[in-house]
This record gives sequence, C-alpha cells and structure tokens, in this order.
Amino acid sequence: MPTTLRRAHIHRLPMRSPDDVGALEAAIAQGDIDPAGIVAILGKTEGNGCVNDFTRAFAVRSLEALLGRHVSADAVRQIAMVMSGGTEGALSPHMIVFEARGDDEAQPRTFAKSLALGRARTPVLAGEDLGRLAQVAQVAAGVRTAMADAGIDDAGDVHYVQLKCPLLTMERIEAVEARGLRTAVRDTLKSMGFSRGASALGVGVALGELQLSDLSDAMICSDYGRYSERAATSGGVELLDHEIVVAGMSAGWTGPLAIDHAVMRDAIDIEPARAALARLGIDVPGQVPAAARDRIAAVLAKAEAAQSGKVRDRRHIMLDDSDVSSTRHARAFVGGALAGLFGFTDLFVSGGAEHQGPDGGGPIAIIVERA
Amino acid sequence: MPTTLRRAHIHRLPMRSPDDVGALEAAIAQGDIDPAGIVAILGKTEGNGCVNDFTRAFAVRSLEALLGRHVSADAVRQIAMVMSGGTEGALSPHMIVFEARGDDEAQPRTFAKSLALGRARTPVLAGEDLGRLAQVAQVAAGVRTAMADAGIDDAGDVHYVQLKCPLLTMERIEAVEARGLRTAVRDTLKSMGFSRGASALGVGVALGELQLSDLSDAMICSDYGRYSERAATSGGVELLDHEIVVAGMSAGWTGPLAIDHAVMRDAIDIEPARAALARLGIDVPGQVPAAARDRIAAVLAKAEAAQSGKVRDRRHIMLDDSDVSSTRHARAFVGGALAGLFGFTDLFVSGGAEHQGPDGGGPIAIIVERA
Amino acid sequence: MPTTLRRAHIHRLPMRSPDDVGALEAAIAQGDIDPAGIVAILGKTEGNGCVNDFTRAFAVRSLEALLGRHVSADAVRQIAMVMSGGTEGALSPHMIVFEARGDDEAQPRTFAKSLALGRARTPVLAGEDLGRLAQVAQVAAGVRTAMADAGIDDAGDVHYVQLKCPLLTMERIEAVEARGLRTAVRDTLKSMGFSRGASALGVGVALGELQLSDLSDAMICSDYGRYSERAATSGGVELLDHEIVVAGMSAGWTGPLAIDHAVMRDAIDIEPARAALARLGIDVPGQVPAAARDRIAAVLAKAEAAQSGKVRDRRHIMLDDSDVSSTRHARAFVGGALAGLFGFTDLFVSGGAEHQGPDGGGPIAIIVERA
Amino acid sequence: MPTTLRRAHIHRLPMRSPDDVGALEAAIAQGDIDPAGIVAILGKTEGNGCVNDFTRAFAVRSLEALLGRHVSADAVRQIAMVMSGGTEGALSPHMIVFEARGDDEAQPRTFAKSLALGRARTPVLAGEDLGRLAQVAQVAAGVRTAMADAGIDDAGDVHYVQLKCPLLTMERIEAVEARGLRTAVRDTLKSMGFSRGASALGVGVALGELQLSDLSDAMICSDYGRYSERAATSGGVELLDHEIVVAGMSAGWTGPLAIDHAVMRDAIDIEPARAALARLGIDVPGQVPAAARDRIAAVLAKAEAAQSGKVRDRRHIMLDDSDVSSTRHARAFVGGALAGLFGFTDLFVSGGAEHQGPDGGGPIAIIVERA
Repeated sequence: MPTTLRRAHIHRLPMRSPDDVGALEAAIAQGDIDPAGIVAILGKTEGNGCVNDFTRAFAVRSLEALLGRHVSADAVRQIAMVMSGGTEGALSPHMIVFEARGDDEAQPRTFAKSLALGRARTPVLAGEDLGRLAQVAQVAAGVRTAMADAGIDDAGDVHYVQLKCPLLTMERIEAVEARGLRTAVRDTLKSMGFSRGASALGVGVALGELQLSDLSDAMICSDYGRYSERAATSGGVELLDHEIVVAGMSAGWTGPLAIDHAVMRDAIDIEPARAALARLGIDVPGQVPAAARDRIAAVLAKAEAAQSGKVRDRRHIMLDDSDVSSTRHARAFVGGALAGLFGFTDLFVSGGAEHQGPDGGGPIAIIVERA
Repeated sequence: MPTTLRRAHIHRLPMRSPDDVGALEAAIAQGDIDPAGIVAILGKTEGNGCVNDFTRAFAVRSLEALLGRHVSADAVRQIAMVMSGGTEGALSPHMIVFEARGDDEAQPRTFAKSLALGRARTPVLAGEDLGRLAQVAQVAAGVRTAMADAGIDDAGDVHYVQLKCPLLTMERIEAVEARGLRTAVRDTLKSMGFSRGASALGVGVALGELQLSDLSDAMICSDYGRYSERAATSGGVELLDHEIVVAGMSAGWTGPLAIDHAVMRDAIDIEPARAALARLGIDVPGQVPAAARDRIAAVLAKAEAAQSGKVRDRRHIMLDDSDVSSTRHARAFVGGALAGLFGFTDLFVSGGAEHQGPDGGGPIAIIVERA
Repeated sequence: MPTTLRRAHIHRLPMRSPDDVGALEAAIAQGDIDPAGIVAILGKTEGNGCVNDFTRAFAVRSLEALLGRHVSADAVRQIAMVMSGGTEGALSPHMIVFEARGDDEAQPRTFAKSLALGRARTPVLAGEDLGRLAQVAQVAAGVRTAMADAGIDDAGDVHYVQLKCPLLTMERIEAVEARGLRTAVRDTLKSMGFSRGASALGVGVALGELQLSDLSDAMICSDYGRYSERAATSGGVELLDHEIVVAGMSAGWTGPLAIDHAVMRDAIDIEPARAALARLGIDVPGQVPAAARDRIAAVLAKAEAAQSGKVRDRRHIMLDDSDVSSTRHARAFVGGALAGLFGFTDLFVSGGAEHQGPDGGGPIAIIVERA
Repeated sequence: MPTTLRRAHIHRLPMRSPDDVGALEAAIAQGDIDPAGIVAILGKTEGNGCVNDFTRAFAVRSLEALLGRHVSADAVRQIAMVMSGGTEGALSPHMIVFEARGDDEAQPRTFAKSLALGRARTPVLAGEDLGRLAQVAQVAAGVRTAMADAGIDDAGDVHYVQLKCPLLTMERIEAVEARGLRTAVRDTLKSMGFSRGASALGVGVALGELQLSDLSDAMICSDYGRYSERAATSGGVELLDHEIVVAGMSAGWTGPLAIDHAVMRDAIDIEPARAALARLGIDVPGQVPAAARDRIAAVLAKAEAAQSGKVRDRRHIMLDDSDVSSTRHARAFVGGALAGLFGFTDLFVSGGAEHQGPDGGGPIAIIVERA
C-alpha cells in the first residue's frame, strides 16, 4: 500500500555566513522544502569548532527565527539542529536538511529499501549518570526508539546515528552533590567528552556492535579500543536529555536515496569510503567524476588527531601545536583527503570522536541518490 | 663510457624537531650518504611557515653544524638548503637530501635517462632589478646554467626547479635610492612576493613556457594567468643572488630514479598527479598501495588558497580566517588530498605560489624509483 | 526652566556571551533603563575583532530581538549599536548603554554643564566619494548636526565622536564603474580603512582640529600625522550612510555625569589619561582606589600596534606575529596598561585607528560621575 | 676587607631575533662583560611560550656558540640559561645577563648590603620523586646551597629564586616502572607542571614561607593556596637535576644594585610593585619618569590567567579562547599593566606559575641601581 510509505529528501545548501539561511528560505519559498517535514538540520559553520565558537549558536538562532515564521514554536523545537564548527582548509560551510514526506507518487517502487529517518529523545539524564553505564543504557534505549520511529528493525540497516547529549555545569554538579552523590567528573569541559563517549558506546550497544555486559564505568573515555562505527555524538549545554537522529535503510521508505557507511582506520584511509561508494552504485577508480558527484547527497565523517602522534609511522605535529587546535588541523587534513576522493568540498567533517571509530580514524556515512 | 655517468640518490629522512639532524647523522655514519656529494637539502619544518617562523633558520643552523664536521665550510655553503615551514594537518616534518655520485657500478644501463641534478648561482641582483624583467632574465640565464650543470639539453626534460631568491630590506632600498633609482616596491614583505614571482617567471622563460618578449614589469605579481608549471621559488634574507637547483631527466645520469611533474588546477585536483605517477610506472586506481609507496622517493608540491574564494564553486573560508593564515589552511588541506592519493604523509607541500601554477592550484613533481 | 533640561545616564553591563542581553533585560524590567531613551549601545564582544568575528553581529541581533519587544522596529533602528570585537587579556565583555531622559528632578542644578549626547545620520554616501574629501566633508556636516542635536555649540566641548561608516562591496564598486567613475580603492577590505580614515578626518574638521582646505585625497590613509584626537570610527557593511554619536558637555543637560578626553602618545602612555581623570575630579597618584572606581561610568580607548615596530625605542613583535593579529596583541597590552590605572577591566578598548590619534597611540575618553 | 667583596652587574640587552646574540657579543668585545663572570642569562624570546616554541632552544644554541668562543665548554655549561618564550603585546625580546665580579674598587662601601647572586645544582632527581615531597626537600636543600654560594644567611634577604627543573619522558617513566615503582604522573606534559610546582614549594620551604611538615604529596598541584612569593620555576628536558640561581641582598657584595620583591594579588595589582620600587629608592606617584627608568636594571614577573575566570569580579575570556593560549593573553595583559607602571617594555614577564604566588597573580622582583 504505497500511501503508507515515507520518502526522505536531502538538501545540501550553501551558507555565506553562520547566520545565512537564505538558501533554505528560498527552497521553502519555491516549495522544494516543506518546513513541516524537516526532521533534522546538520550544519558546518565557520567558527573554530572549540570552546569559544559562537557561530553554532548564531546559526541555530537564525534557523529558529526562519522556521518560526513557517511552523509553530513547538514544531521548531522538534527539529534536531546539530551545528558543527570548523570548515578548515577548503571545507565549505553548508547545511544538510533532512526532510521526510509521505510518498504520494504512484509508481511501483524501484528499490526494496530506501533511506529512512527516525528520531527520539530520552528521559532527562540524571547528573550522576552522565559518563557512566547508566547513560550508555539510556542512550541504547533511545536509539532503539528512534529505529522504531524510522521503521528499521535490523540494527544492521542503521548506518548513522547523530546524537546530541547533555553536559555538566557547576550548577548541575552541585545539585548532584547536594543529594549526597558524586558525578563522574567535576571538570565541566571534560564532562562533554564523557557524555559524548558514553553516548557513542550507547549507540554501539543499540546496534549490537558492543555488549552492555562487557562494558564498565572505567572503560568510558579510557578504553578507546571499544567504539561504535556508526555514532556521531556532540554535546550541548541547552539540553538535559538526548536528541537522537537515526539514518538507515528501511522497506517502509521509498525513493532513490540510500545510505551506507565505512570506517577510516586513520586520517588518510579513504579506500573504505571508496568501497562504500561502490556499494551504493558509484564505483570509480580515482576521484568521483563531475557527473557522478551530483548523485552524492551527503558525506558525514569524523576527524581527529591520532593520540599516538603518528600516521602510518610518520610523526604528525597536530597535538604539539599550541597555536592551532589539533581538531582544526584534523578537519582540514581529513577534509582534504575526502575531497580528493569525492571531488567537492561541502563535506560534513566534524571533530571530537570519543569511542566513535578507532584512534585517529573515524566513521564515515554516505548518502547517494541511486540511478 | 659508464664511468662518466652520474647517479642521483634521494634520501627522505624524518625530523623529530626543527634542529633534529639525527637521521642524517646516522646515514652519514653508516655510509649511506656521502656529505661531499650532497647537492641540496629540502626540509619541511613544523613552524607556521609565515613571518615569525624561526624553525627554518634553526634547521639550517643545525644542518650547517653537522655538515661542517664532515666537509669544509666552503663546501657547506655550496649545498642549497631550502627549509619550508608548515607541516599542518598530518603532514610530517622531514628532509629530502639530494645526493649525486659518480656511478661506479659496471652493469649495462637499464634506463635511457635518469634523474639528473644541477645547480647554479646567478650574479648578485641589483636592488632596482628585483621584481622586474631584469630579474626574470637573470634567473632564466641561471636556470640554463643549472641545466647545463645537470647535463640536460632539452627544457622538456626539466621537471622541477627549486630556487631561492633575495628580498629587499630597508637598507637595500635606501642604497638604491641613494643612487637616484627606485625599487619596484618599498614594502619589504611585498618584495618577497615580487622576487618569488619574477623568479618563477624566469624559470618559465628558461623552460620555454613563457617568452620574455611577451612579459612586462607590470605583469609581475599582477597577471597570474602567466606562470611556470615547474617552478618552486622561496625568498631568503641571507642571499643577494639566486640559488638554483634543477631536477630533470638526462642520459648523462644513470640509476632507477626518475622524475615527472603535473599541475593541479585547484586544491583537490589530484588526478593529474595520479597520471604522472602512472607515467613513472606506478599505475594505481585508488590510493597507492603499501608495496608501491616505498618506490616513491619524493613528492614536491605547492599549495595556496584560491583568491576567488571558491573551490569548484563552493565557498572556502581560508582567506577570511583571521586566526589561522590561509597558507596554513591550504597546506593542511592539499596535504590531505595528496596523502589520500600517495598513502603517506611526509610530502613536501609548500605555500606561496606567485606565478607558480594557476590560482588555487600548483605544480607537483614526483620522484620514483623505477622497477 | 528645569523641564527643558535633559539628563544622560550611562549603564555599564556585563555580558556572559556575545548574545547575552540578560543584564539589559533585567535593567529594563526593574525600570533602571527606559528602552525609549536609549541613544546608543557600545559593546565589547569576545570575538577576534577581525574579519571572521561573528560575535558582533550575534550581539546586535540579540539586542534587536530584546529591544524589539519593548519599542517599535523603527525605534530600534534609531539606536546606534556599535559592537567592537576583542576582549584580549583580562578585558571583560560588556556593553555600555547611553540613555537620555528628560530631567524631572526639581533640585537646582549643581553643575554648569553635564554630559550631553547627540546623534545624526548623513545622506547616503556615493561609492565614488568613499575615502575621499567628499566623505570628509559629509561627515563633518553630520558631526555638526549631531552636536546641534546634543545642544553643544562649542566644538571644544565635544570629547568623543563614535561613528559607523559604510564600506565598498564588489556590487557597489561595479555600480560606480557602470556610471563611468572610479572608486578610491577596489579592495573591499581596504575600503573599510579608507572609510574609517576619511570619517575620522571628517570628525577632526568638524571639531576644528583640522582644516578641510589643508587636506587632500592623497593624504587619506597615507599622511597619518593628521588626525582627530576625539574620533572613534568603525565600518559596517549594513549601512550606506554614516551613523554618528557625539558625547560632550552642555549646559542643556544636567546631572553628575561629565566627560573628558586625552591622547595616549604610545601604548603605555597612561599619564594623559590620569590627568584627564584628575580634571574630572578623580585625582589619584597610583591606581584608582576601589571607592573611586564606582564613579567611573565608562572608559573608551583606541589601541593599535605602532607601525614603527617600536615602543619607546624597544622592539615589539606585534606586526611580525603570524599566529595572532597585531590588533589582538595591542588590545590586550593597552588594556593591561589602562586597567593598571583604572583598577577594573570592563574597558572599551577597540582597535583600528586610522587618523585617530598618533601612530601606536590613540584617543581615550572618560565619563565620570562627579561627586 | 674589601678585596673579598663581590659585585653583581646586570646587563639588559635587546634581541632582534631569537638567535641574535649581537648585543652580548658587542658587550664582550668592548669589555663591558667578562664572559668568565657570567652566572646566568635570562631571556625573553618571541615564540608562543608553549609546547612548540623552538625559539628558546634556538636562543640557547646561539648563546652557547658565542660563549664557547670565549670560555671552555665546561664553563658554558655552568651558566644557567633560562629562556622564556612569549613577548606578547608590546613586550620586547631581550636578555638579562647576570655577572659577578670581584670588586677591585677601593672606595669605602656606600651600602650595607648589595645584590648578591648564588647558584647550585642538586643531585639527579629520581623519576619516582618528581612531583612529590622528596623533590620539595631536594630543592629546599639546593636553594640553601645557592644561598650559601651567594653569601646570604637570612632567608629574608632572598628576593628571587630562578630554578630550572627536570621533567618525565616516556623513557624515564618506563625506567621507574621497570624498578617496580610508580611516578606521580604518567602524562609527560603534566609532569612539567608537577616538577615546577614541587620545585616552587621547595623554594618556599627553603625560604621559610612554608614548612615541609605541613605539606603532603597530595597538595602538589592541587592546593594552590600554598605557594612561594619568590620562586620562578621552569622545566627543561635537557637536565635531570635542578639548576638554581638565587638573587638577594648580602653584606658580602658591594655596588649600587639592590633587589626587592612584591606579590601581585591579581593581574592588575601593580601597587605592590610600586611599593617595592619605593623601598628601593624610586618613589613615584604615576609612571616611572624617564630619568628614573635608567636606574631599573631588571623587572622579573610571573603572569597567568586566574582559574576563577574573573579579575575583580569581572569575567575574563582567557581560559575560553581556543585560538590564543591563556598564557599568551596573560603575558600581554600583565605586561601592559607593568609597562604602564615602569614606562618601558623589556620586562621579563613569564607564564606558568604553579605554587608561585596566588591564583591569577604572581611574584615580581625588581633590581635597581641605587642613587
């Protein structure tokens, strides 16, 4: 019964500045995007991606203002907005709008499964649970809910989980301690890493990459040999629960879009990405040629500097440079490696990758419009 | 008569810090390198590659101290030492030692031509000639001398010209003006760009890429549509003439090493480099596999941010970032693109490319040990 | 007739982030500030103060949103909002709200003159006039209008002129050229400097510091020996005319606030500021003691790196540091020098000072609540 | 018996680059400095003062090369060379040469006590002792030895202790663990902080500011309420023991030089420095006037960002800026505050101040030539 099928649309739109929502505004005005169907917006803004990067909040504020003119304030709040700072090198500032529509087209379906999107929010995370197994379990449950929302039964069909998680502030820490308990960390900045790390492990548990029973509190942000190959987590001070978006393949969705993923073992390990592209139907020996590029809807990757201080046994200086953060170095360099493969530069390459792929490498997801 | 043949050797050595000459010291101690045969040393050091980068001078001082224990001070002065600051992203600090030896092996030669090295110095450049056609002509003559030194007759056999050129200081400017003349620029920093640009044009003239009669003073650092595809020039306050090293192919040299070059049209244009690799006998569809990497002796490339503010019609932010120099962004990103192709990170990627390849792109030379 | 007198109020409010308008919101809620009376808001935000500083626009957007809930959109547009990026060192992000009220208090006036505020906007500046004498003249006329608005007859009573001026974009340049004319510069970034410089000279002309007849187009951004000691100009892409705020002393205003100014000859020349403080009634030998600090309503100063490369014959490295902009160095250092005098850190120290005080120094204005 | 008296000389010399030893060379050539009498050289170089600051090693290498032409290699090794990176703001690169000579002048002594210099080295520090009370005790003993060398009996006469301490490398950590012991930290970067902190506490114990019996291992780099007001410690990978230089007042020394110290409670607390100046005979209400400046031989201060995030209850952004290290911010700002007092910019302001003065403040020592 085709009327029950949903269909995902991906819109990759340029941004001339962090607060530039002009391309989105135009797409809405032209009817290319229905604001009511927007599930999530991922954006790469041109700040430093570190502590004092205000371009993320500025972008979110501008998106909220625009969307608030089209849908209710509550509907705006339902949209997951994940802004990632840092377009180093020739990476290009852009946003990726994930839209879901009922499919009203009558044609018989071409593909058995298509790109499926789902979202969920967890209950509020107790401060004392942050960075501990309780958070892992809570996130795992949330991911399963988002999978159900997407109509994905098989965890093997999930290729990307974007998750925003809470962090600790001094107020939250003190509230925990007033109840006679202790938080996993007292350093608010470190709490971001613990929250991202525990959340990534939770994704891994939900997807069957990891077993909750094999994990312990002590492993979180310590045993980086355990990780998810499909998680992308980021922290935000503005929420107390978890905001989860799942992207995968489902028979409940139609349309030409498909997603797959790969894991880069180090900063220049592009061949797994090439193999994923081939699985998606774009099988190219060198750089993706211009004609095929238009069929690539989105590239979502993680970049970070290897803690070993080396890439394939050659020393890198990213961790020793006190003038430029290692996360900025890593995004520029991995961005270059991936742009060399894909042939374009508006790639969603984000940093900070606790328990998200191996040290110095990271997951990469690709969404393609099938021929 | 094989005894008259020369043979080039390339040694790519890691550096643990700008003053680390330990690998070179060990190679000399083990007899792998004969200090008397060193023609040039190119190094990538981990400074910012900009005005206040003292890692270059520190490296040169350390090399001079080491070599001074093996050969005469005059012999040390003959060695061209070109340190390029900036190993952004995962680029790895290293030095490339160019050595020439008489070939004492008796076997019949396998290759018609082999990697040939030559060097030359020009007369002292008059201050009023810097950044003008007189410098272009002087450099062109110097390149021809270096070609002769290398035993290269055909300019088409030259694939890389590394050139160090002088700059203007306030003292030099005033000396010119005391003689009633005027310099091309009065800004000492800009004089570096003019000297690099005029030198690159001089290389182009020597190699037949450009005609001196088609050029004018006004085109220098202005009409960037005119450029050499084989020049790499850098300025130094320590010299008043030009120090030139030519690398190409010659029947007067033997051994398995060969060089070729390509031009990247933009920051992610890696396919021309792949084609050059194939011409050199390493024909690979994706990333160069581990087995073939060892045969790549050196990769020498230029990187810079496109003045258009775009790469393939997508905006880049390199020229707008007041926290990180565009040259640092560009080296990291282009370094990533090239490392994605070559599969290793000790690539000689340097910035500043007036009249050296097209805007936003640049020349790349590759030296390979043939099978 | 006291009812005709006006009274200026100055509110120096902390900002916890560029978009934090909480202190202003609270002051309005408590009736301490009447939004309808706000003449201007100056803010120091924590961006880099250079090209890619989005904290300024983010702050303005947040102020507009808040004020738009209290007064009409047109009234919001009337308020001059000048955000200056860069709170280096221990400078503290803050905003200074300039408010004017009718004075309804019945007491006989204590002071002959009090702080007076006036504002004006000029006609739209033709693109071809930017950076030329025509702009100087236009600004001079605008400053005189703002003086009239403030009720200041004697230019000697003006101590501070804050001015926002337009800049050239490629569109504006092309529009000029389409009319067969030429702009003073074709580089859009440089056009900001030319606009700031011409505007500062215009202030100097209006205040009698300079004579229009002594100036020429060629002197603008070239002959820095000519400057105003009371101008603070900044460029903005959002306007085509000039937005002018004048602060001085007038018998038409009442209340304890008074303003005076001084000129620092170099980055550490704090004694003129001390002398200005003494003229305002705070005569202290060392650092202003805690008790007197509360009486200092605002400190408005300019900082820049001396082009000579020296401060009192000792070399500084601000212009050679490719990792940190010289403007950031200068604000931190001058901020420290001034904080050592004033004893607090929420000082409005801004950079970029073409024709605003001598090279390496700059004007400083101080507003004090008299005893 | 005047022939037994010693006399200290202080030479503050400009540096045009990190490797510029020209002023020292000239002073030696002119007989102003006897290389054999040099006790210590402190230098401010223009690097970033952080991990990848190679200007310090470059300066030391250049000094060693120069001095090695005048005295034996062993004598060069005896000279304490402490290079501090970072001349932010208008701080000026310079070196301070501490020289001691026998006093051959016959005049009756004018001052009861004069500036006295002493040095000492401790035994090699066992890796497992670093950052623990054993290091504190070892340093305390070393400081007492240096005091004896200086002829200072009363700890109250010591005003400045410059100390270079070892750090842990992976090799050293593994050597400790091979013996079945554990080091205080396993992070090599953190080991620098622990070594500096324990050394500073050792200075405090030697000077009677702290009691060894009141301290515990757990307090090191944790309880910052305990500190020395006269210690300046820095780590170096090149030594395994401690290199100590003490400066104070002693009747065994003659000449017009005198030293005193003060403690800044925060980044703008300059009045204690003014009071110290007054005690040394330069009693000035505002900035030190030009005539008196020449009598100030050296200013040695510490700067760091307050961990509280505030200066006098106003927020600072130094710890949140991911583009510029907080240590760079702090040196620029405190440098400005002190230059505003002293009237010149070649001040030795260094960062990193574990247990060296209160949080956000730091010790300052001043050496003056008495009238």
